Amino acid sequence: MPQLLSTDDSDFNTRFADLLTMKREDSVDVDDTVAAIIADVRARGDEALCDLTTRFDRFTLTPDRIEITGPEIDAAARAVPQAERAALELAAQRIRAYHERQMPKDESWTDKSGATLGWRWSPVSAAGLYVPGGLASYPSSLLMNAIPAKVAGVKRLVVTAPTPDDKVNPLVLLAARIAGVDAVYRVGGAQAIAALAYGTETIDPVDKITGPGNAYVAAAKRRVFGRVGIDMIAGPSEILVIADADNDPDWIALDLLSQAEHDESAQAILITTSAKLGQQVARAVEARLQTLARRDIAAASWRDYGAIITVNDLGEAAALADRIAPEHLELCVSEPDPLAANITHAGAIFLGKWTPEAVGDYVGGPNHVLPTARSARFSSGLSVMDFLKRTTMARMTPASLKAIGPAAETLANAESLEAHGLSVRARLDTMN
Amino acid sequence: MPQLLSTDDSDFNTRFADLLTMKREDSVDVDDTVAAIIADVRARGDEALCDLTTRFDRFTLTPDRIEITGPEIDAAARAVPQAERAALELAAQRIRAYHERQMPKDESWTDKSGATLGWRWSPVSAAGLYVPGGLASYPSSLLMNAIPAKVAGVKRLVVTAPTPDDKVNPLVLLAARIAGVDAVYRVGGAQAIAALAYGTETIDPVDKITGPGNAYVAAAKRRVFGRVGIDMIAGPSEILVIADADNDPDWIALDLLSQAEHDESAQAILITTSAKLGQQVARAVEARLQTLARRDIAAASWRDYGAIITVNDLGEAAALADRIAPEHLELCVSEPDPLAANITHAGAIFLGKWTPEAVGDYVGGPNHVLPTARSARFSSGLSVMDFLKRTTMARMTPASLKAIGPAAETLANAESLEAHGLSVRARLDTMN
Repeated sequence: MPQLLSTDDSDFNTRFADLLTMKREDSVDVDDTVAAIIADVRARGDEALCDLTTRFDRFTLTPDRIEITGPEIDAAARAVPQAERAALELAAQRIRAYHERQMPKDESWTDKSGATLGWRWSPVSAAGLYVPGGLASYPSSLLMNAIPAKVAGVKRLVVTAPTPDDKVNPLVLLAARIAGVDAVYRVGGAQAIAALAYGTETIDPVDKITGPGNAYVAAAKRRVFGRVGIDMIAGPSEILVIADADNDPDWIALDLLSQAEHDESAQAILITTSAKLGQQVARAVEARLQTLARRDIAAASWRDYGAIITVNDLGEAAALADRIAPEHLELCVSEPDPLAANITHAGAIFLGKWTPEAVGDYVGGPNHVLPTARSARFSSGLSVMDFLKRTTMARMTPASLKAIGPAAETLANAESLEAHGLSVRARLDTMN
Repeated sequence: MPQLLSTDDSDFNTRFADLLTMKREDSVDVDDTVAAIIADVRARGDEALCDLTTRFDRFTLTPDRIEITGPEIDAAARAVPQAERAALELAAQRIRAYHERQMPKDESWTDKSGATLGWRWSPVSAAGLYVPGGLASYPSSLLMNAIPAKVAGVKRLVVTAPTPDDKVNPLVLLAARIAGVDAVYRVGGAQAIAALAYGTETIDPVDKITGPGNAYVAAAKRRVFGRVGIDMIAGPSEILVIADADNDPDWIALDLLSQAEHDESAQAILITTSAKLGQQVARAVEARLQTLARRDIAAASWRDYGAIITVNDLGEAAALADRIAPEHLELCVSEPDPLAANITHAGAIFLGKWTPEAVGDYVGGPNHVLPTARSARFSSGLSVMDFLKRTTMARMTPASLKAIGPAAETLANAESLEAHGLSVRARLDTMN
């Protein structure tokens, strides 16, 4: 059973605070192992990649097979059924259209002092995307990472993916082809992150690494951060559904389960103004759990981390939502817009009962890589901005330097940075 | 003597590569100490802050004095000479005007499927700025961190600053007042970062921490990253000046020294098409080093990390600049715009000989918190974006769900995420 709470309960505040601080992930300390793997890849390059892959992914890898060749990708792509190919292409097209609108503009203006100021955006030169293997090998995640990079204008975009037992996921390779990825390497784990950050004989280093991964991958990303850019460190998925009385309990149940089935550490929470709907949803979840393919995972998540919270009105719901700062927020209410306007912290908002979160996972257009573990308070989902950087620009004229230079000199001297002040003064002195 | 290189030298590539990979910072391992400090602050709150401050900052702090009171700030601010106050106010006004232009816009549109998509921006609720003590206590840095936060709309903005020997920098307090900071705490080091991240009786926790600091502060920021957002981990400052023959060697020398005087680990590099100018600048630097107040620091930086590189043309200069990816790039050439267009990786570009980098440190308008250590390849200077986060929005109609929902169902099933598919299917089935 999930937790059942009501804002009218006398112990509500304590129990809600416990729900917020609940630890959902065992933090395994893999840092020493990861440090050794990174050192090995830096020292021995391809040879280390092959040895580590042979050890962890249970097949013998040789340097000439590190890169998955074009013909291999073509053959795998041809094996994908037409319906899946069409769905991937629709997803790619919609993700591309959404992310193209995110491209920021360069700006330049001249202010009244005569100084010309502005900034310009440029893409990182090379990006590496990590695609996990095994159960979590999702072609949709490849699109969500690769397409923003391509839209941003990244020149070289490569993918690393473990292929345990030497098996590749054809849908992932097709997604790589659709997204325009330049190379795919059959390497995973911390060794893949090390190769992307430092380079090997086969894999050139990149400037930015994105994509989800297990504890080893996450630890490796933290370690190489600074040498390269990384995206966020993603935690288990979460959904918060806010629903009024006028909802089909089965729809809400499935929306909750669509997060719960990801991972035993996932969290699904319903906040409702209708205690009756809350009860109906609880029963609908149990009914669906009888037959769901991933029922063991979903049942564990729902039992350990699920919650149904009854509130008196949507104002209460909004306040709780901001404290949860959910990755995904579904507003299954008759007037979702004013409710959304009342909530500040969420990674993505799905408005109205016709917008199941799963649409956003695949074909909505917005990115499905979103901030977890309450980090929507301060961070955003993946976007083209993650593959761009901004250079600020300034150009003074003699007149503008005369207007504002003396203030710079004053502050430099106040901060005891004499050369700073002199570099302005030397120029000002030629104007007298 | 700095290194003297020419692209015509037979060993140029090796020496330039060595210059790029030169390690300028000793990485002191303070992680265990920092972990203990953070644990102490989490366990004992204000009491730990006071004990640690008494130990590290050499004065007895009691909980009632952790916050610097309004009257104290007022008194300190009144003590600042009028010229410095006016300079700070001009700086604040120009920084505000520049950063107001950075505010991104919310977007919303309806596509041909009938789906309404978009995103909206919102500020983090609370931000904490770290202002280092001692020599590096710069009021200009306070403005550069605080003003973007205020422009972004951060509701609660607090500053922590160590006050060794119980001495405060009046200019820093005045800058806090000008920038509209809500509270200033006389606490520094890892304990200040712990307090901002976890809160104590006196200091409420924040969502984002920015600002430079020593190795302890940097290690603490890395540790609390994830619980709160952090800005970049800044390294020693750098400048690259590209100059043609038509320059005053003394101006260039002062521009180089304005970085070198920051820190013995700072790096100043000149690339010039004129070997003669290179020699003149080397002599001008030596001359200025005779009298500069911070000559010991500047001379050490110039000797250990400085370089003058002679190139055959500005095309070579641009290619080298991209490999250096400097924090600050000055283009002292007759036509700076086409040269700037030819360079991709730089934190900030200063165009033309009338734009000394020091203007940008104080009153230019753009932020002076910029990516160091080649990270301009993948990251940007501080901006209003650091204090904002984006929530993506999506709203389907029954018709748009009918149009794109089946593709989501297909992909969900291909990824073996049955509940994802069912959450779409349950809705589609009601439409038949």
